[in-house]
Amino acid sequence: MAKERLVVVGGDAAGMSAASQARRLKGPAELEITAFERGHFTSYSACGIPYWIGGQVAGRDELIARTPEEHRARDIDLRTRTEVVELDLPGRRVRARDLESGAESWTAYDKLVLATGARPVRPRLPGIGAHGVHGVQTLDDGRRLMDDLERSPGRRAVVVGAGYIGVEMAEALVRRGYAVTVLHRGEQPMATLDPDMGGLVHGAMNRMGIVTVSRAEVTKILTDEEGRAVAVATAAGDEYPADVVVLGIGVEPRTALARAAGLPVGTSGGLLTDLSMRVRGHEEVWAGGDCVEVLDLVAGRTRHIPLGTHANKHGQVIGSNVGGGYATFPGVVGTAVSKVCDLEIARTGLRERDALEAGLRFVTVTIASTNTAGYYPGAEPMTVKMLAERRTGRLLGVQIVGGAGAAKRVDVAAVALTAGMTVDQVVSLDLGYAPPFSPVWDPVLVAARKAVSAVRAAGV
Amino acid sequence: MAKERLVVVGGDAAGMSAASQARRLKGPAELEITAFERGHFTSYSACGIPYWIGGQVAGRDELIARTPEEHRARDIDLRTRTEVVELDLPGRRVRARDLESGAESWTAYDKLVLATGARPVRPRLPGIGAHGVHGVQTLDDGRRLMDDLERSPGRRAVVVGAGYIGVEMAEALVRRGYAVTVLHRGEQPMATLDPDMGGLVHGAMNRMGIVTVSRAEVTKILTDEEGRAVAVATAAGDEYPADVVVLGIGVEPRTALARAAGLPVGTSGGLLTDLSMRVRGHEEVWAGGDCVEVLDLVAGRTRHIPLGTHANKHGQVIGSNVGGGYATFPGVVGTAVSKVCDLEIARTGLRERDALEAGLRFVTVTIASTNTAGYYPGAEPMTVKMLAERRTGRLLGVQIVGGAGAAKRVDVAAVALTAGMTVDQVVSLDLGYAPPFSPVWDPVLVAARKAVSAVRAAGV
Repeated sequence: MAKERLVVVGGDAAGMSAASQARRLKGPAELEITAFERGHFTSYSACGIPYWIGGQVAGRDELIARTPEEHRARDIDLRTRTEVVELDLPGRRVRARDLESGAESWTAYDKLVLATGARPVRPRLPGIGAHGVHGVQTLDDGRRLMDDLERSPGRRAVVVGAGYIGVEMAEALVRRGYAVTVLHRGEQPMATLDPDMGGLVHGAMNRMGIVTVSRAEVTKILTDEEGRAVAVATAAGDEYPADVVVLGIGVEPRTALARAAGLPVGTSGGLLTDLSMRVRGHEEVWAGGDCVEVLDLVAGRTRHIPLGTHANKHGQVIGSNVGGGYATFPGVVGTAVSKVCDLEIARTGLRERDALEAGLRFVTVTIASTNTAGYYPGAEPMTVKMLAERRTGRLLGVQIVGGAGAAKRVDVAAVALTAGMTVDQVVSLDLGYAPPFSPVWDPVLVAARKAVSAVRAAGV
Repeated sequence: MAKERLVVVGGDAAGMSAASQARRLKGPAELEITAFERGHFTSYSACGIPYWIGGQVAGRDELIARTPEEHRARDIDLRTRTEVVELDLPGRRVRARDLESGAESWTAYDKLVLATGARPVRPRLPGIGAHGVHGVQTLDDGRRLMDDLERSPGRRAVVVGAGYIGVEMAEALVRRGYAVTVLHRGEQPMATLDPDMGGLVHGAMNRMGIVTVSRAEVTKILTDEEGRAVAVATAAGDEYPADVVVLGIGVEPRTALARAAGLPVGTSGGLLTDLSMRVRGHEEVWAGGDCVEVLDLVAGRTRHIPLGTHANKHGQVIGSNVGGGYATFPGVVGTAVSKVCDLEIARTGLRERDALEAGLRFVTVTIASTNTAGYYPGAEPMTVKMLAERRTGRLLGVQIVGGAGAAKRVDVAAVALTAGMTVDQVVSLDLGYAPPFSPVWDPVLVAARKAVSAVRAAGV
């Protein structure tokens, strides 16, 4: 049998996990692996960038799980600073450009993995390209921001967007001594939560000294004579002075290439795959990571949920399948955790608006509890909001905001959602209890008890 | 309809939860509630006693969720220092003794709740009743120990037993400045874990300066002329000097009364109930808390698992049922969490010996990971052991030992066990990921990945 050729486009979590897993299953005599990466780095934790910027992580290299050299040592022909600029699916080949020399060449494949990731949304605004305006999506972005902060230290930072990246970057800049203002378009920060829970994050951020401006529509980045950002202007006519501007508005799947080649994408522009992570309708093409849509098991539809943990799993599944094994990625329930300073933030399943959009009738309850037994020293507040389906009592979603241990508490709900449990079943769960770790009724169980009553009271 | 009479025997978690829930559903015009409690206190956290002794919790009163007066204010006729000494089931009445006056009287019931709790195992050894030898099962026990520590401060403590209470009391006494020696009969401390995992606890305790002596059979408590304990002697002929001795050998269901009345008990002596917590074969008698056996859903048998969190749930279920509502307690999966100083310890499901005893064929895997992303500051080691059934790949049990966040990590496995998930399904779980909270592959998922391979390698 002829040697099989695997081409991987994109050298971060999904792409290199796929390449590594395929290599584990098939040696170089059976499988030739070529991977293309536009940037300088591979297999790094983009999620770690805020902690590098904030100084908790000493250096960039700590975020790199595996360097290009390490991949090459495992017989993966890895080409960094090389961008794939065309997919020729009928001809089973890709055209790649060396970003240093500009030289282009075609590489043939038998199997193709697309792991092109996501790109930060950059609104087309005057000044958006100015010096001092930064995204934080890639390690190259992080390096540029870090260089800028070190070369031009300032006092005032404006963060645009109040999602995960926005609040994490706000914390990072506070840690570096900046006075931070967060401008965001929503009613409350953390639009991945319902507004009532986002309000708790809002209050906590303000108490940490972070200014948050809601319903703020950025219209322009003001610059000085040298083209450096000096302030951010909003539609309300306000100007927020800034020595540095960080964009955390969100990301979108980087799928222009794939769309040009006719591959199927969903409503958010992410590639659509089957359960083995094969692109729908294309036998020889797999895709994973931030460039795909994943099945939301609770809502029953696909969504774009860019997260390193999904990307790693996708890579593992793809690598198993292209390496001759068998694995599937059944979908997600929408779990995400974060923190801003000491406040932990978590969600899983559906928010109210998601449940409405999914056509579900539901009840919501919110309870206040503590992360440890109330009498245990350092007990911190924890608020849990829970959604349950009317009539059936099926758990639909949980949001948690609180002190230490609040974030990973959401995992209980994530597993219960995956199992399709009702809130009655959740009440009976045998969760770990000891005073340093939980009140005798875990806050998630307290919420479930209240949800059981609410379901009963709501009728059908 | 005549007013119904509910009698509750035992005024801690299960009994008073049942009384309170019944009262919530039925007012005093419909239901008369009488509760008998031998001790001075009601509705307290016995699990909190080590933290009161250790000084983290300021005072005893903080451990009391609801005082006798508060219960009485809610129309519960609560009689403290009153012990029920006979159950007359055919006559539907109980005989109670006032422990202050010695006076006895009969109280009739329509429905009876038994919540008599557990009592510490006290081996019949010379000196076991000496001054300075303490159990820590009830708040009265805790008060006696606390008084003793304050009146006769010493330097050396011996803890007998290395289960949850033993290790927690070891920590408490270290915090009070004692040199602590823990004597235990097993190969390793924490026999609720497999010995390999107990070995990790052993090493950590030694590094904290706690001396542990394994395979130690206590034969005698040596006393001075005034009858105060001065040392603990073992079968090996060793003597361990002690200014205070704490017994943490375990507890057994306090069911002598119930057995005398002919109620059914299991192999551990705990009462046997149906799923509504009604004593099997007895329409009008309910039982819950540390005096019952609970159904172990993984092993398919009943066990005695004395834990405050179960007791509270039992009380809630019993109170709903005796109050005219409907609730059930489906069983447990054997989750327990604890800590000794900064080391967190958790288990759920079956240990190797449990799985063997249950007639299961299984594989075990153990992995080393960290509680946060490896590069995040303060990342601490976390070891996860996982058992999975051969052939089916069904998850059977998880044990975790490690740094902050290790203990409650086990809840993920507890929910997965309840749902009957396979380790393949666990690998795909959508757990919260962000660098301050987890590596990109959560340690539980890493263990599950390894378990999947082990199941495949093991064949049928």
